[in-house]
Amino acid sequence: MALTRVNGRGPQELRPVTIERNYLKYAEGSALICIGDTRVICSATVEDKVPPFLRNSGRGWITAEYALLPRSTRERTVREATRGRPSGRSQEIQRLIGRALRSVVDTAVLGERTIWVDCDVLQADGGTRTAAITGSFVALADALAGLVATGVIERLPLRDFLAAVSIGLVDGELLLDLDFEEDSRADTDMNVVMTGSGQLVEIQGTAEKHPFSREEMTAMLDLASEGIAQLIAIQRRVLGPLAEQVGMGNE
Amino acid sequence: MALTRVNGRGPQELRPVTIERNYLKYAEGSALICIGDTRVICSATVEDKVPPFLRNSGRGWITAEYALLPRSTRERTVREATRGRPSGRSQEIQRLIGRALRSVVDTAVLGERTIWVDCDVLQADGGTRTAAITGSFVALADALAGLVATGVIERLPLRDFLAAVSIGLVDGELLLDLDFEEDSRADTDMNVVMTGSGQLVEIQGTAEKHPFSREEMTAMLDLASEGIAQLIAIQRRVLGPLAEQVGMGNE
Amino acid sequence: MALTRVNGRGPQELRPVTIERNYLKYAEGSALICIGDTRVICSATVEDKVPPFLRNSGRGWITAEYALLPRSTRERTVREATRGRPSGRSQEIQRLIGRALRSVVDTAVLGERTIWVDCDVLQADGGTRTAAITGSFVALADALAGLVATGVIERLPLRDFLAAVSIGLVDGELLLDLDFEEDSRADTDMNVVMTGSGQLVEIQGTAEKHPFSREEMTAMLDLASEGIAQLIAIQRRVLGPLAEQVGMGNE
Amino acid sequence: MALTRVNGRGPQELRPVTIERNYLKYAEGSALICIGDTRVICSATVEDKVPPFLRNSGRGWITAEYALLPRSTRERTVREATRGRPSGRSQEIQRLIGRALRSVVDTAVLGERTIWVDCDVLQADGGTRTAAITGSFVALADALAGLVATGVIERLPLRDFLAAVSIGLVDGELLLDLDFEEDSRADTDMNVVMTGSGQLVEIQGTAEKHPFSREEMTAMLDLASEGIAQLIAIQRRVLGPLAEQVGMGNE
Amino acid sequence: MALTRVNGRGPQELRPVTIERNYLKYAEGSALICIGDTRVICSATVEDKVPPFLRNSGRGWITAEYALLPRSTRERTVREATRGRPSGRSQEIQRLIGRALRSVVDTAVLGERTIWVDCDVLQADGGTRTAAITGSFVALADALAGLVATGVIERLPLRDFLAAVSIGLVDGELLLDLDFEEDSRADTDMNVVMTGSGQLVEIQGTAEKHPFSREEMTAMLDLASEGIAQLIAIQRRVLGPLAEQVGMGNE
Amino acid sequence: MALTRVNGRGPQELRPVTIERNYLKYAEGSALICIGDTRVICSATVEDKVPPFLRNSGRGWITAEYALLPRSTRERTVREATRGRPSGRSQEIQRLIGRALRSVVDTAVLGERTIWVDCDVLQADGGTRTAAITGSFVALADALAGLVATGVIERLPLRDFLAAVSIGLVDGELLLDLDFEEDSRADTDMNVVMTGSGQLVEIQGTAEKHPFSREEMTAMLDLASEGIAQLIAIQRRVLGPLAEQVGMGNE
Repeated sequence: MALTRVNGRGPQELRPVTIERNYLKYAEGSALICIGDTRVICSATVEDKVPPFLRNSGRGWITAEYALLPRSTRERTVREATRGRPSGRSQEIQRLIGRALRSVVDTAVLGERTIWVDCDVLQADGGTRTAAITGSFVALADALAGLVATGVIERLPLRDFLAAVSIGLVDGELLLDLDFEEDSRADTDMNVVMTGSGQLVEIQGTAEKHPFSREEMTAMLDLASEGIAQLIAIQRRVLGPLAEQVGMGNE
Repeated sequence: MALTRVNGRGPQELRPVTIERNYLKYAEGSALICIGDTRVICSATVEDKVPPFLRNSGRGWITAEYALLPRSTRERTVREATRGRPSGRSQEIQRLIGRALRSVVDTAVLGERTIWVDCDVLQADGGTRTAAITGSFVALADALAGLVATGVIERLPLRDFLAAVSIGLVDGELLLDLDFEEDSRADTDMNVVMTGSGQLVEIQGTAEKHPFSREEMTAMLDLASEGIAQLIAIQRRVLGPLAEQVGMGNE
Repeated sequence: MALTRVNGRGPQELRPVTIERNYLKYAEGSALICIGDTRVICSATVEDKVPPFLRNSGRGWITAEYALLPRSTRERTVREATRGRPSGRSQEIQRLIGRALRSVVDTAVLGERTIWVDCDVLQADGGTRTAAITGSFVALADALAGLVATGVIERLPLRDFLAAVSIGLVDGELLLDLDFEEDSRADTDMNVVMTGSGQLVEIQGTAEKHPFSREEMTAMLDLASEGIAQLIAIQRRVLGPLAEQVGMGNE
Repeated sequence: MALTRVNGRGPQELRPVTIERNYLKYAEGSALICIGDTRVICSATVEDKVPPFLRNSGRGWITAEYALLPRSTRERTVREATRGRPSGRSQEIQRLIGRALRSVVDTAVLGERTIWVDCDVLQADGGTRTAAITGSFVALADALAGLVATGVIERLPLRDFLAAVSIGLVDGELLLDLDFEEDSRADTDMNVVMTGSGQLVEIQGTAEKHPFSREEMTAMLDLASEGIAQLIAIQRRVLGPLAEQVGMGNE
Repeated sequence: MALTRVNGRGPQELRPVTIERNYLKYAEGSALICIGDTRVICSATVEDKVPPFLRNSGRGWITAEYALLPRSTRERTVREATRGRPSGRSQEIQRLIGRALRSVVDTAVLGERTIWVDCDVLQADGGTRTAAITGSFVALADALAGLVATGVIERLPLRDFLAAVSIGLVDGELLLDLDFEEDSRADTDMNVVMTGSGQLVEIQGTAEKHPFSREEMTAMLDLASEGIAQLIAIQRRVLGPLAEQVGMGNE
Repeated sequence: MALTRVNGRGPQELRPVTIERNYLKYAEGSALICIGDTRVICSATVEDKVPPFLRNSGRGWITAEYALLPRSTRERTVREATRGRPSGRSQEIQRLIGRALRSVVDTAVLGERTIWVDCDVLQADGGTRTAAITGSFVALADALAGLVATGVIERLPLRDFLAAVSIGLVDGELLLDLDFEEDSRADTDMNVVMTGSGQLVEIQGTAEKHPFSREEMTAMLDLASEGIAQLIAIQRRVLGPLAEQVGMGNE
């Protein structure tokens, strides 16, 4: 017997998704992504230098930071500046975001520049890390397009689209795009990051409550593929003509 | 000869102001205040305890935190969680916000509860601290009204309205509500916090470039009064019927 | 054409593995695990209280900490106490270790106690996090057995064995148990944690260099299963009679 | 009916003030200022570089640090080194001191040098920040005079004298130079920084208890002017011949 | 051939010593000790609780903190609050001061109270840690006497006097009470803490430049004994009648 | 009547000592030293630069870091990375180790290089700091020998052997090499560092419980000399032919 989900959506349905491009005035690229009640501001900042390990390599870098606003959550979350350091959870998420975005960037075309991606969660109703990846791709595309437009780099160094989604097993049922309530009841939850061509970039599956089988894993990945395809269609629509340039330089 | 201001506003005119009440889903009170391109999310959270120095006093407390999102600014601002502590500027601002709000709250009616006010700047184009005070008043009113509605406290413990504005002397001219560009050119700038009845709560005037005279000070205060009266009119409109309860319990 | 691996091992072969049980005198359980040149001290400490969110729940908790000794690495690693905080990498690893171990512990049988698992890497030649999980299981089993022996708890609260291994794609070839050199050349690397009954507990696959396909993923999981089965056989041998009690209380 | 003040001073009278010039052996300029029981050591240190934002500007910088010794206060104050950071209050005060001193320094004459001003409170009986500003002016004058004497700079880059005082409304009465006891009972308290020519540099008025009127504000400023004039007379006497050079280079 | 020392003092002579008792208004005991140009404010604060390891032991505790004011030194020393933590040197010194003072306190007579001893160096010309111990003894005696006077404890819980001095080998010559200049040229330097009855409490000898022989060590201790006897004579004079009570309760 | 010591050793006897040279694969020098149940990993790392105060001096530097693994101790010790800083005790010990090693190194022969010595305590049963010094000497010798072997420096810059031992007075009896239990009962304990030629390098004696006499001090030093001679004999044996080069360059 199927679970009833908020707003009557089906088990394999995404929540409503909107991406507001260029949400911020000063950032080189930015987007406000809303997935259901989850809302994340993503911005991309260009800096003309790279971390020490890349100096004189001719290659660029993408790094991300992630934080929750205090009242993005049901209970107020203490600020990380008050605690004196980003939490382990935030660090894990920002490492994931940076790594995922780097997988579709041609860093040699980017040259010795760093793109700082900031993901600030205004409201957290589950799936903030996957929303952050999906929204950051749009902010990143605009920041990179700006470098092309001003002649700083030759072509858009994006090899493919990139989006992410969560799936989970809740009371034995397979669900796409878990909200907070569903996530906290899940036996297994998984975050999947995929490219526009359907290749895997990251997969993180966790079964704190009950270990899961290989068959369940396969079903979860199938469902993730479908959700990600829908998200990438939205990215394409939002980016308009710029979408055409993604993957253009691939040999 | 008068300065030309952005969008053709006059020297003694506020930028367009909007306050979106209940901007956040989970907070007990919240508002998104936009003054020109300055945008601040204000939220109010109720906690059922007070700091040690108020225990067993029967009195409540209002405290504030303030932060800039990294790309709220022209140049990316390093996160305070990365620096390991709030900057001196942030701490100074949050002390100001808390102190100003406390001046209109009847803490004995509030009882031993703390209201946490969070002011997060999405975009910073001058006047973020005064916008934060003006917006937080609305968030605070709603959080307190919630306590009345649920019977936790007897009446709205707000003695008066409260808003704030900046004024400055720029190239010898008196300007109301400085944007970032004007602020950075000002010889003197002043932040004023006033109540609905026109009393002063805070005044902070600084002349890093050129000291100012008593006459200039008087003119600045006159102008601030006018600006604050307009902001309070907006607060009244936004709060609707709740506005009637402000100051009701004053003897 | 196949890669040549150090010491002539085959692509699907583990490095030599030893687990020295009760390596430390004072800890309630401890093990020194060596996998090739990777060496990790794992210890388990019993504390008679739980974190705040579990108080009065009747349930226990397992938490882990992980650190590298400065010269466990090729280049000296700066101490985290000098940096003032655990690195993002360390925090991510210790969250993984704790989560994985909790998945096989019956926390209601454990009662309101915390087991602190410390994983200190003496030498890091790849696979330290998976070695830490595999070794910690032994330390944890002894600490729990001590609680049974002294009558504090009724039975061994371990539902199943647990071990972990890394696999990767290096130059198109599938390799089991990557050493440092292989890991740094891998296109995709994956860490898998499984139980004695072959169920999945954690899967973390990352393709910073080249996205991977669903077929490659299936092959990696097959190989991981084989490696983990071998590691669990070693845990059984090391634990001797105690191994019989693992999973005994499962209904 | 007037309040009785300690040692029988009148409401508009300063406490006894002494400034011991060159109190420290190693500093380029120093002073011990005592105002009643408040005692602050002020020192000025010359450093041959400026913060990044002033490099290649040809201009210098004045920065201040402020701290309480643990037993400067009635109850022992925990050291900021133990807390790990300066308190919000200390940071706010040191920002004020630096800003105020900069307003009378001709930083182009100073050239690319920083003057570090340290204000350490030996005993705190109210008015420590205003005493720190008044005493630091003397330390600063000597440090700058040393640069003139050694030919490093051409002339004393001080445009005017600078001093500060507190005033407040206590039980409806206007008081000059509040001691700790008076300050903690004040409805409104204000700190004012003025130059030798009677111009305003900083004004910070706070009414946490009761908002104040424009008339009260005017009366407070009048009283502050008188107090500051007396403090500047003392600075002149203490500086002796050096006092003649203050403001000499003003066009 | 003998070294020439500043102000013509002999190799085995102390610098001029003064101890100003009750230097601070608020502390339960305090002293400003000047030894040559070294000046340290010592204060003692009584707190009605003990660290966790002494709870319900019936015994008290003495703990010390030590810090340099920024311009106590030739070059300005960065504040420890700015660095975020006490330096290793400060921590080592404060551990020494606390340990030394505890050796002459009868903590059972003191009862479950902590005495916080703060040593703040106004000027550092060598021997600050030994001056701090010598001065703190006076502050401690007064704080303890206050507890006797108010009937909180029965008798003065001081078993003996306590003072400290440095000695060193400089260019082969044995010197008492090294100033900064001598200390930085010393081959070996030693700090010795002794009681009024000539027993050793602490000895710390360091030969970073040249190891020293057993004979040199004996000579250094002989000289330290003489210096300490003189310092204790000064403590006795300063404490006046209170000096009689030191050691009175010893069986 | 004599105390009974663990394993029947006499009062003036060391515990069993072993030093495993080159314990770690990556470090330039390393040793695992075991003294009874105390076990410390010592490693030496060569870095091609010196701290700022030695730049352009032609001289090198030796610095040490010391830490306890969490379960090296009876009760689990909280990690210093969790506390955010090395404890005062750790800092004091690492300053001692660095200072002691520097006393036998000819830093001009070493040239502008830093040797980082890491001492990580696997198990702490008393005497960890003296074991760390004794073991680090071996690690340091190998790291320096490596520089000679590769032609980076001309000769082994070690002037002499160096080892350390603790002695104490326990219930009136003089004991060599205290274990944890003995140390916690000692009235006086002393750590002594000496060279192969029997000169003193460091002596730190502490009498928190009962002051000690000059005669006791002499007896403790005599006993320390004997213990250190035995430790240096072990170092010689472990270093084999390399031992011959120690002190070879002394004039």
